[in-house]
Amino acid sequence: MPFIQKAKKRLFLGQTNENMNIGIIGIGRIGKIHLQNCLTHFREINVLGAMNPSQSGRNYASQLGVPMVTNDASELIAHTDIDAILVCSATDSHATYVEQAAKAGKAIFCEKPLDLSLDRVRQTLALVEECGVPLMLAFNQRFDPSFAEAKQLIDSGELGSIRSLRLISRDPGPPPLSYIKRSGGMLMDMTIHDFDMARYQVGAEVVEVYARGANLVSDEIKEAGDIDFASIMLTFSNGAIATIENCRETSYGYDQRMEVFGSNGMIRIENPVKTSTLLSGPLGTLEGKNLDFFMDRYAESYRLELAAFFEALTAGKPMAATGYDGLKAMEIAEAAMRSIAQNRPVRLA
Amino acid sequence: MPFIQKAKKRLFLGQTNENMNIGIIGIGRIGKIHLQNCLTHFREINVLGAMNPSQSGRNYASQLGVPMVTNDASELIAHTDIDAILVCSATDSHATYVEQAAKAGKAIFCEKPLDLSLDRVRQTLALVEECGVPLMLAFNQRFDPSFAEAKQLIDSGELGSIRSLRLISRDPGPPPLSYIKRSGGMLMDMTIHDFDMARYQVGAEVVEVYARGANLVSDEIKEAGDIDFASIMLTFSNGAIATIENCRETSYGYDQRMEVFGSNGMIRIENPVKTSTLLSGPLGTLEGKNLDFFMDRYAESYRLELAAFFEALTAGKPMAATGYDGLKAMEIAEAAMRSIAQNRPVRLA
Amino acid sequence: MPFIQKAKKRLFLGQTNENMNIGIIGIGRIGKIHLQNCLTHFREINVLGAMNPSQSGRNYASQLGVPMVTNDASELIAHTDIDAILVCSATDSHATYVEQAAKAGKAIFCEKPLDLSLDRVRQTLALVEECGVPLMLAFNQRFDPSFAEAKQLIDSGELGSIRSLRLISRDPGPPPLSYIKRSGGMLMDMTIHDFDMARYQVGAEVVEVYARGANLVSDEIKEAGDIDFASIMLTFSNGAIATIENCRETSYGYDQRMEVFGSNGMIRIENPVKTSTLLSGPLGTLEGKNLDFFMDRYAESYRLELAAFFEALTAGKPMAATGYDGLKAMEIAEAAMRSIAQNRPVRLA
Amino acid sequence: MPFIQKAKKRLFLGQTNENMNIGIIGIGRIGKIHLQNCLTHFREINVLGAMNPSQSGRNYASQLGVPMVTNDASELIAHTDIDAILVCSATDSHATYVEQAAKAGKAIFCEKPLDLSLDRVRQTLALVEECGVPLMLAFNQRFDPSFAEAKQLIDSGELGSIRSLRLISRDPGPPPLSYIKRSGGMLMDMTIHDFDMARYQVGAEVVEVYARGANLVSDEIKEAGDIDFASIMLTFSNGAIATIENCRETSYGYDQRMEVFGSNGMIRIENPVKTSTLLSGPLGTLEGKNLDFFMDRYAESYRLELAAFFEALTAGKPMAATGYDGLKAMEIAEAAMRSIAQNRPVRLA
Repeated sequence: MPFIQKAKKRLFLGQTNENMNIGIIGIGRIGKIHLQNCLTHFREINVLGAMNPSQSGRNYASQLGVPMVTNDASELIAHTDIDAILVCSATDSHATYVEQAAKAGKAIFCEKPLDLSLDRVRQTLALVEECGVPLMLAFNQRFDPSFAEAKQLIDSGELGSIRSLRLISRDPGPPPLSYIKRSGGMLMDMTIHDFDMARYQVGAEVVEVYARGANLVSDEIKEAGDIDFASIMLTFSNGAIATIENCRETSYGYDQRMEVFGSNGMIRIENPVKTSTLLSGPLGTLEGKNLDFFMDRYAESYRLELAAFFEALTAGKPMAATGYDGLKAMEIAEAAMRSIAQNRPVRLA
Repeated sequence: MPFIQKAKKRLFLGQTNENMNIGIIGIGRIGKIHLQNCLTHFREINVLGAMNPSQSGRNYASQLGVPMVTNDASELIAHTDIDAILVCSATDSHATYVEQAAKAGKAIFCEKPLDLSLDRVRQTLALVEECGVPLMLAFNQRFDPSFAEAKQLIDSGELGSIRSLRLISRDPGPPPLSYIKRSGGMLMDMTIHDFDMARYQVGAEVVEVYARGANLVSDEIKEAGDIDFASIMLTFSNGAIATIENCRETSYGYDQRMEVFGSNGMIRIENPVKTSTLLSGPLGTLEGKNLDFFMDRYAESYRLELAAFFEALTAGKPMAATGYDGLKAMEIAEAAMRSIAQNRPVRLA
Repeated sequence: MPFIQKAKKRLFLGQTNENMNIGIIGIGRIGKIHLQNCLTHFREINVLGAMNPSQSGRNYASQLGVPMVTNDASELIAHTDIDAILVCSATDSHATYVEQAAKAGKAIFCEKPLDLSLDRVRQTLALVEECGVPLMLAFNQRFDPSFAEAKQLIDSGELGSIRSLRLISRDPGPPPLSYIKRSGGMLMDMTIHDFDMARYQVGAEVVEVYARGANLVSDEIKEAGDIDFASIMLTFSNGAIATIENCRETSYGYDQRMEVFGSNGMIRIENPVKTSTLLSGPLGTLEGKNLDFFMDRYAESYRLELAAFFEALTAGKPMAATGYDGLKAMEIAEAAMRSIAQNRPVRLA
Repeated sequence: MPFIQKAKKRLFLGQTNENMNIGIIGIGRIGKIHLQNCLTHFREINVLGAMNPSQSGRNYASQLGVPMVTNDASELIAHTDIDAILVCSATDSHATYVEQAAKAGKAIFCEKPLDLSLDRVRQTLALVEECGVPLMLAFNQRFDPSFAEAKQLIDSGELGSIRSLRLISRDPGPPPLSYIKRSGGMLMDMTIHDFDMARYQVGAEVVEVYARGANLVSDEIKEAGDIDFASIMLTFSNGAIATIENCRETSYGYDQRMEVFGSNGMIRIENPVKTSTLLSGPLGTLEGKNLDFFMDRYAESYRLELAAFFEALTAGKPMAATGYDGLKAMEIAEAAMRSIAQNRPVRLA
């Protein structure tokens, strides 16, 4: 039964005892997170089926009680009882599954990016629009309580007009070279989150980009044709200026901070720490360590992102992160890559 | 099959594919937490059965896939496939279920306190010892990562000899009067955690207590015969001096902090906050709010406490918090109540 | 010319160009601080004379341009052009100089304590009152911007009714044994600041004291008949309960903090640090070191304390810290010493 | 007597009782600070004379005991007993006084900038070098304890190789328009400190600049032909990349922070606050306010800067901030202005 009818029955007919039925495609690292989070919604959500190419992922789903496990995505997509599809498979299969699900009239939650090719992304989005199905793109950081609180303070006018935004994202260590080679490059793979966050918080479009890339971490990454450090300046249509710094390595854990400076004040998001323990001795006071990586830092955001997807579906509201958002972030990334290549500021269309 | 044989099969015979089977008695607020946390151990733990007097708790367990639900605890305790019993029912039933489970040869995890009567606690512990079954008493705060880190720093000698320990526990608001009347009093209900934590961190026994109680929050609590504020000084056998402050109300959320001062340095545990967002304006910089209450603050500790129980069972190791620990904390609470009544320091036997 | 006439001329006759003339008795460690701070008031204050028993102190004063230097305090006290006397000499001479200055009609600023004997303090205060001269007792910590801000928040009602106050004062290391032997004991020498601060912040009188003393730092201090650690509980007439902890040694610099918990919120004063530099690495983030000792921590308070003395004189207002305040703090100290000796709570008259 | 001979007599002949004699040109805001700080060096430094065009400044110096006051700078410069000249007058007179003092063989301490014209700066520096006199340019922030500690950590290798440096300088409010019009522009007047700090901390030269300027604060500043916001990216010869953000206004006091990210860790310098008081209530915890402006924030740096000048003179060591440093900072500022004008990265010679 399509999600809209089901939502209507819930909302208007008072038939609230009917759960939304879900199919998950891809039970890898991120698919497992979403599957576990689905279980905490057990009163509203049934995970009816899970697809994974390899047996281990299918076993995982079975052990968690998913009734239907398969290695054939089209089985899930065609299943008439399934209302929504979560696409958590490898990046190069996202667009295909999204298109199939859209044609089948399912609501779609898709891990980013939709595709590494801007053209393909535009085609897929056009099809989704044509089919009239809701699509949420998984920019999970938007749902992190700290970033969401910042957005709320900005939207409430508390901060006044935004003058500048500063984002720092530094990973604790680089991913495997094999990953880097298929990633589309650091700007498309890692900075993409910051491009989206900058647009989201500033609430305007980027009109110009200047970027510098460098290899400060690893010769291997250089040989693989990618950078491991970037410093980027964005100019927005409303005059705000953002800087983004990314690095593939730190000695001190995951480092992701934001600062927004407005005419009325300043918002900062600092790194949460593992423990709230302080140790004082002759050298000073030692605070807790940073969290290891995004799986710890953003555990809560994954839960809230999925809840937002289900809530928007049920209430028939627009998605909090759309395919269009994914497209815009990719366009900025593409402009930044040209800026590095040509060492000049690049204007966006 | 008794847990010891099962653990042996796992450890020595390599038969690691056999799960531990669990029965939960009581699916109220804390029972639901433990049940959900059991599910995250789905590879090692089966929740075979759940008992709850009312239907709603039994429905909750069913929806989460627990195969056997009942309103009769003895069914679970008698079930031969069940290896361990989690006692999460009302306080006045703890001792009875623990005794039944001990006689049935089950491993036991029991919410604190075992009973409000020191005599009954001693009797029950004697029976548990006689039966030779493992018993963990749920002092969950010991498993909180910050408190655990402090304990580790102390045990490693990093802090030197302990000179003083300071604990502050202030609840955001008082519980219902009906709860307070059955609670055994603030010292037995709330400070009990601090008495245990002080013993745990200092690693010595309390030899003398001086306490003052007061009614600074609510006249109703006074009329119910309880205090809502306490300030307590403990002297330990190793010379360390601890102070504990408790209050049933704050205007700023849950407040639970510790400070341990040693010859080599100082450890402090501060309150974690809801977000790592800072807002700067003309009045200064506003940090995030405290967490609301123990359910948020100690969510992680509940997970880790249960993991420690299962790990100790499997490895045949001693429990990290025992019935004896519960007894000692109650003895301190009882001495503190006498100190308040008589306004003098009271020595412990 | 007596200070009152001079103040009147300033305030009412508009003759504001006439400076207050000052004499300083004692150019030791604290006298040098006050002398230098007088110089920053060079537009309103003339230091006309300085007395010191030894040549080096007199040389110091001469180099800073003090016109009259002497080893005879009565010369300064008798000098008709001197309006106010700062008593910065050894403790056992305070009462004598204060009495002489009072008889000579001078305004008096005196380092604490007035005397180690409660009886002598009472006699001296009676004489000062009889002579009708203003006397400020140098409880400098009251003028520290952080402690003053706390007092202001409390007096404004922002904090609501005070439930508890917590003071920690830990020195970086013990003073010389020779000093300890003449000090009147840790409670009279060191805790006296905390007793005054507790009274000052709570705004009520102490009605009962319970104290424990210990020797946790040094055997030599024990042999000298003093303690080096104390934990104290104070009950105030308004129901607030304070705890004070003092220690003569830390591994991590000067540690002096306060916490005031009220029905509307909580104020904390944390230790200021040497630099605002943070260093992040694999072990976590290292904050700056604590300040070394009170000379750094309270440099600003000494400036503001002297300014408050001059301002009160000029405006004819009451002193912000009086001889009575000194007396009350000593009475609490005396009660705390009895509490330790008898291991029981002691009520104040 | 020239400073070198005097220093030699001190160092090698043991004649340490002879003070350095100083003349100060300009007793305005900054001249008063330096004059007061000279007084705290009263054992090693005599302020022999002070020049100021207006009477009020001369009175100030007289009241503080300076024996010779004049409105004629050449009197001081020609005085044979004066060893060193502090140039604290209006910017457009700096170069002239420095040249006169150099010809007279005096050691020179000069407020920045030497001149607004790069050509004139180069000429003056050439003359100073020819005359062989020591010249310190007053980049006071280098002597701030926090920034000095960062430099030390970097130089010690603790931070590893520097990857990026981030500087934020935001003034609490813009200076008067009359000042802005004579200032040489925000980049030359305000960012100049950051350009120097970036060079100082990174320990390498800037090879390329990209800058964006904007008017986000005040239309009047725009009409006066200046910007009030700038975002700048610097590339250094060693590959490090720095970003600088400047703004002429905040709602929350003076904001000046630095972050240095290296292969081994990260250093941050945060804003010091007025008090170490924290206030917790329903909205969260309010930390202290930022300091008002540079006079508070850098009071200590002015003291230490002057001490460093005297120490270098006495020891015959090189100055910690030279005319060359001033020249390099101006060259970067000039390149940044061209970058804004042409919206392209600009390489430095």
